[in-house]
Amino acid sequence: MSTLIQNGTVVTAESTFPADILVEGEKIKEVRPGIPVNSADRAIDAKGMLLMPGGVDAHTHLDMPFGGTTSSDDFETGTRAAAFGGTTTIVDFAIQARGTRMRDALDTWLKKAEGKACIDYGLHMIVTDLGLAGLEDMDDLVKEGVASFKLFMAYPNVLMVDDATIFRALSRTAKNGALICMHAENGSVIDVIVQKALAEGKTAPIYHGLTRPTTAEAEAVNRSIAMAEMAGVPVYIVHLSSEDALNKVREARDRGLPAFAETCPQYLLLSIEEMERPNFEGAKYVFTPPLREKKNLGKLWDGLKHDHLQVVSTDH
Amino acid sequence: MSTLIQNGTVVTAESTFPADILVEGEKIKEVRPGIPVNSADRAIDAKGMLLMPGGVDAHTHLDMPFGGTTSSDDFETGTRAAAFGGTTTIVDFAIQARGTRMRDALDTWLKKAEGKACIDYGLHMIVTDLGLAGLEDMDDLVKEGVASFKLFMAYPNVLMVDDATIFRALSRTAKNGALICMHAENGSVIDVIVQKALAEGKTAPIYHGLTRPTTAEAEAVNRSIAMAEMAGVPVYIVHLSSEDALNKVREARDRGLPAFAETCPQYLLLSIEEMERPNFEGAKYVFTPPLREKKNLGKLWDGLKHDHLQVVSTDH
Amino acid sequence: MSTLIQNGTVVTAESTFPADILVEGEKIKEVRPGIPVNSADRAIDAKGMLLMPGGVDAHTHLDMPFGGTTSSDDFETGTRAAAFGGTTTIVDFAIQARGTRMRDALDTWLKKAEGKACIDYGLHMIVTDLGLAGLEDMDDLVKEGVASFKLFMAYPNVLMVDDATIFRALSRTAKNGALICMHAENGSVIDVIVQKALAEGKTAPIYHGLTRPTTAEAEAVNRSIAMAEMAGVPVYIVHLSSEDALNKVREARDRGLPAFAETCPQYLLLSIEEMERPNFEGAKYVFTPPLREKKNLGKLWDGLKHDHLQVVSTDH
Amino acid sequence: MSTLIQNGTVVTAESTFPADILVEGEKIKEVRPGIPVNSADRAIDAKGMLLMPGGVDAHTHLDMPFGGTTSSDDFETGTRAAAFGGTTTIVDFAIQARGTRMRDALDTWLKKAEGKACIDYGLHMIVTDLGLAGLEDMDDLVKEGVASFKLFMAYPNVLMVDDATIFRALSRTAKNGALICMHAENGSVIDVIVQKALAEGKTAPIYHGLTRPTTAEAEAVNRSIAMAEMAGVPVYIVHLSSEDALNKVREARDRGLPAFAETCPQYLLLSIEEMERPNFEGAKYVFTPPLREKKNLGKLWDGLKHDHLQVVSTDH
Repeated sequence: MSTLIQNGTVVTAESTFPADILVEGEKIKEVRPGIPVNSADRAIDAKGMLLMPGGVDAHTHLDMPFGGTTSSDDFETGTRAAAFGGTTTIVDFAIQARGTRMRDALDTWLKKAEGKACIDYGLHMIVTDLGLAGLEDMDDLVKEGVASFKLFMAYPNVLMVDDATIFRALSRTAKNGALICMHAENGSVIDVIVQKALAEGKTAPIYHGLTRPTTAEAEAVNRSIAMAEMAGVPVYIVHLSSEDALNKVREARDRGLPAFAETCPQYLLLSIEEMERPNFEGAKYVFTPPLREKKNLGKLWDGLKHDHLQVVSTDH
Repeated sequence: MSTLIQNGTVVTAESTFPADILVEGEKIKEVRPGIPVNSADRAIDAKGMLLMPGGVDAHTHLDMPFGGTTSSDDFETGTRAAAFGGTTTIVDFAIQARGTRMRDALDTWLKKAEGKACIDYGLHMIVTDLGLAGLEDMDDLVKEGVASFKLFMAYPNVLMVDDATIFRALSRTAKNGALICMHAENGSVIDVIVQKALAEGKTAPIYHGLTRPTTAEAEAVNRSIAMAEMAGVPVYIVHLSSEDALNKVREARDRGLPAFAETCPQYLLLSIEEMERPNFEGAKYVFTPPLREKKNLGKLWDGLKHDHLQVVSTDH
Repeated sequence: MSTLIQNGTVVTAESTFPADILVEGEKIKEVRPGIPVNSADRAIDAKGMLLMPGGVDAHTHLDMPFGGTTSSDDFETGTRAAAFGGTTTIVDFAIQARGTRMRDALDTWLKKAEGKACIDYGLHMIVTDLGLAGLEDMDDLVKEGVASFKLFMAYPNVLMVDDATIFRALSRTAKNGALICMHAENGSVIDVIVQKALAEGKTAPIYHGLTRPTTAEAEAVNRSIAMAEMAGVPVYIVHLSSEDALNKVREARDRGLPAFAETCPQYLLLSIEEMERPNFEGAKYVFTPPLREKKNLGKLWDGLKHDHLQVVSTDH
Repeated sequence: MSTLIQNGTVVTAESTFPADILVEGEKIKEVRPGIPVNSADRAIDAKGMLLMPGGVDAHTHLDMPFGGTTSSDDFETGTRAAAFGGTTTIVDFAIQARGTRMRDALDTWLKKAEGKACIDYGLHMIVTDLGLAGLEDMDDLVKEGVASFKLFMAYPNVLMVDDATIFRALSRTAKNGALICMHAENGSVIDVIVQKALAEGKTAPIYHGLTRPTTAEAEAVNRSIAMAEMAGVPVYIVHLSSEDALNKVREARDRGLPAFAETCPQYLLLSIEEMERPNFEGAKYVFTPPLREKKNLGKLWDGLKHDHLQVVSTDH
C-alpha cells in the first residue's frame, strides 16, 4: 500500500521547501514537488501544513508497575496520545525483576505492547541484578535490538545497584556496543534524609523535594561519568534536573568525554513551589528527581542551547 | 621535676630568637633569654641548636593487624623512631571489628600503647559498623578524647562501609563535634578491575598501581565532600595521592567548604616506577593509594604551598 | 545556460544518496535521480564521484601588501588553487589605510578581484582607524555586503587599534548587525619581548615563535570576549593557535556567550620545531600567531570535535 | 627614652598572654610578665587592655591633588585619625607627573609628610611615564626605600599607561625586587561608556556606578596577571571590588601564580544602592572602582577567609 502526501511544506534539519512525499509501506520513497497523484494508492492533501519527521520520546513508562500501582497509560492510550502530539516513536523501559533474567522482562514488555501500540517503539532494559549470566544476557539482548540498559543509583533495596554492578555493566558495553543510561541520585544518602524527615513527621508533598538535594544528583552524575571514564565508554544521564548536575556533565564534555544527558519538560517549565499547592494538590507534582528551585530553569534551557544537554524526553 | 634548656635558638611560627626554655613537668613555663640556671632541677645545653615544637604525625598504624600479619612497628619501636625524628605526638588508629562496639577497639588499642609509647599519642577510631548503637558510641568516644573517626570507601567486605553509613556518621558530627576522616577510593570499581587483572595473571607488584586509577580516588574525594556538604559538616581526606583528587579538594575549598586533606612523603617523593623494580623489590612500594605517575608530585607540592593541602602525615 | 550533473552520489549534512543535479545559471534547480538528459544544455558524467557543496575559506589574503612585499597569490592564482581543492567561496580582507576611509579600501580590493577571481568571493574589512566617520562608514559597508570587520590587537603602529576603538566597533554591531573579527594577541607586550630579543641578537626564525607566548594570545582572547560581553554582541576570534587561548573561548561559550573562533590547518598539523629547520628553512614557517608546542595540536582537534571551535580557515 | 607598658594582655598571631612590654626608642626590647618598673623612664598602665601590633594601612592618599581639588586629609590630620584607630603605619602614594622624574615626586611627597605625620609612613610611587630613564629611576627608588610602584589601567589621558609600559615595569621588578601594584579597570572601555552616558544626560551619581561594569575590572585583573606571568614576577591588585575580579585572582592563585589582591571596607560593607540616595547624598559614595551589587559582598568576605584576598586597606 502506498500513500502520497501532497502540497505540504517539508521541514528538515537542512531546509524548508514545498514538496510531495511518496510513502510505500513504511518507507519514504520520494520527496519532491509534483509527484503524480496516480503514483500512489491514496493521496492526502497537506496544503498549508508542515511535514516533519516524527518526534522520538526516549523515556516513557507505559503499563509500568511501581509502588503497588501501575502507571496511568498502557501502550494503547500512551502511544495514541504520543501520536496526537507528533511523536511517532517511543523508547520504553522493560524492568528486570531481581533474581530473574532480562530475557523474561523483555518478553513481558513485548507482550504489553503487542497489538496495542499505534506508533513505533523500542525498549531499554532496566538492570537490577547482573547475577551470574547478566553480562552474557546483555550481549544477547543487544543482538535482539535492546541497545541501552538503565541502572539506578537511587531507590536502595528496590532498584538500586552498587558501583561494582554499574562498572561491570559499563565495561561490558565496550564489547557489545550498548549504551548505559543512569538514574543519577545518591539513593543511600537520600534514604537517610528521608528517614529523618519521616521520623519528624514531615510527610507533606513538599518534603519529597526537600529530601532530595541537588548535591545528591550532582554527586551521582559525577560518579557515573567517572566510572564510564574508567571503563572507557560513553554514558547517558536520564532526566537531569538541576544546574549542579548539569555542571558535572558540562565539565566532562569540556574534557572531551562522551557524556550525554537528557532533561524533561517538567524541569524546564516548573519549580518546587508547585509541590506546596494546598489541599494535597502538590502531590500531583511528586516525581523523581523532584522539581527544583526556579534558578535552575534558565540554566537547563542554556544547557540545551549550548549542547551540554542533548535530549528532551518526557519521563512520561 | 623541672628542666632548663639553655643557649638554644627558639623557632616559632612567628620568629626565630635566642632564648632559654624552662619546662616544669609537661609544661613550658618560660621562654626568654637569661633564665637563671638554678631555676630548674637539671639543665641541658642547646648551644648551636634549634628549639622547635615537636612534630605531630596525624596518621600512624602501630601494632596493626592487616591481611594476616601485623604492621612492623609496635608502640615502643614506632614511637622511639618518631622521637628520633623530632615527632613528639602521633595519632594512631583503633579499628572497630564488625559486629563489636568501638569501645572494645579503644580498650584494645590503649592496651597496645600502654607502657610502651615514649611520646604523646591519641587515637582515631576506624568505624566499620554503625549497627544499632554506633552513633551513641561515637558521642561517648568523643567525650573520652577520640576526636576523629575514619571510614573506608575502599576494601569491600573488609573495611568498606556504604554511603548511608558514611552520611550518618558525618551528620552525627554536627552534634558531637568530631571530625570524619575518609579513605577515599572507589573500592567497588577497584575490586572489579583487580579481579580482571588477577584473571589475566597480572600479579606483579606494578599491577597494584595500575588497578587503582586516580579517577577512582578523585571520584571518592568528590563523593566524600558532597556528603559532608549535605550533612553541613567538615571532612578530612587522608593520604591524598594524586592531582585528580587534589583538584576536587581545591574546588571545594574555593567554594568555601570546610574540606581538608593530608598527603604523605611517599606521594611527594616517589612515583609508580618504583613498583617496577626487578627481583620483586617493587613489592616494597606496595601501599594504598598506590604511587602515581611523576607528574603528580609537583602538583602535590604546589597544593601544600597554596593551602589546598593542610597536613603531611606518614601513614607510617 | 543549464548543466546536468549525472550519475553522481550526493553528500549533504543529512544523508548520502545517488542523484542527478540540475543547475540553471548559478542556482541548483533540482536534485533527484533520473533527471532526463534533455533538461539541460550540457551534461557532465559524475559516475563514481561524490557531489558536495563547495568549501568556504573564511580567511584569505590575496594580493595583499605587507611588510614591503605582497602575498604570493593574487585573485587569479589564488582562486584557481582554491577551486582545485574544492573551495568555491573565499572571504578575503580589504585593508583600510590609516587616515583614509573604508570605502576606498573596498574599491581597491574589488578592483583586485575583478575579472580575476574564478570562484565566489566576499570581503571582510580591516579597520585601522575609526576617525570621525568610521562608525557611519561601517553601517554603509554592511549595506553593500561587507558583513564583518576585523581589528588587530597586535602590530602596534601598523595595524593595532586601542581598546576604545575595538569597543566602539563592537558596540556598533548591535545596530548594524555586522560581526567583529579579532586578531587576538597582546601586541604591546609582544613588541617589548621582541625588542629585547633583537637587542640580544636573537634573530633566527625560531625567535619569532619564542617571542609570542600563548599567554599573550589567551589574554587578548579573554579581553576581546570581555569587551564583546560589555557591548552585548557576538565576537569571532581569527586563527586561534593554542590551548591557552582555546580555554578562554570554551569558558565563555560555557557561560552562554556568543563567542566564536576559527583555527587553521597549520595549527592543527605543525608545531614550533619546524621553525628550527636548518639553512634558514625554518623561515618558511614564520607567520602569526606562530606555531606552538606539540601538546596544543590534540587540544585544537578536540576543540573542533566539541564545538569549542567553529571554523577551519587557511589564513592562506 | 624608654617606656614600659604594664599589666596588659599581649595578642600575637600565635597566642594571647599577660605580659609587660619594654620599649626603648622605637624598638620593643622585651615582652614578658614582671618587668621591673624601674627599667624604663616612664610607665603606662595597660590593665584590662589588649596590646597588639599596630595596623598597617597599605593604601592611603593624603594631601593628594586630584580632579582640581585635594584629598580632605593631609599627613597631620590623616595620620592622627589613623593612630586613633590603631593604625601605626601607612603607605601613601607619591604621583609622578608626566614628563617629570619619579625622584621629583618622591621629594614632593616626603615634604608633604615631613613634620606632620605622627605615625610611621612609607610611599608607593605611581608611575605615569617611563620615558627614557624610568626603569633606572625605579631601581634608584628601590634603593631609597620605595618598594612598590603603582600603574593605572584606568583614567586615559590622566594616569593610564599602556600595556607596553606596564610590561616593562613588571619585567624590571625581576631585577630590582620591587612589587607592581595595579589599578585594574579597563579605562578605555569605561571611557566610551561614560561618554555615551554623558551624551544621554545621565549625570546623577548612580551613573558613576553603572558606567564601570565589573567585567571591565575582571578583564583588567586578568590582563595584569597575564602580563606578570609573562614577566615572571608577582603582581598586586589594589582595591578589588567584585566577585568577577576576585575569580580571576583565585584562578591564578590556584595555578600557583604569585598574584595578590587587597579589598577595602567600602566593598565589604556597602553596595551600589548608596549612590541612589536622594538630594545628591549619593555623591558621597562616588569613588573608583564604584560600589557593586549586594551579591558581591559575601564573596569578598569569603575571599578574605580563604586567602584569595590577602589585604584590607582603606584607599583612604
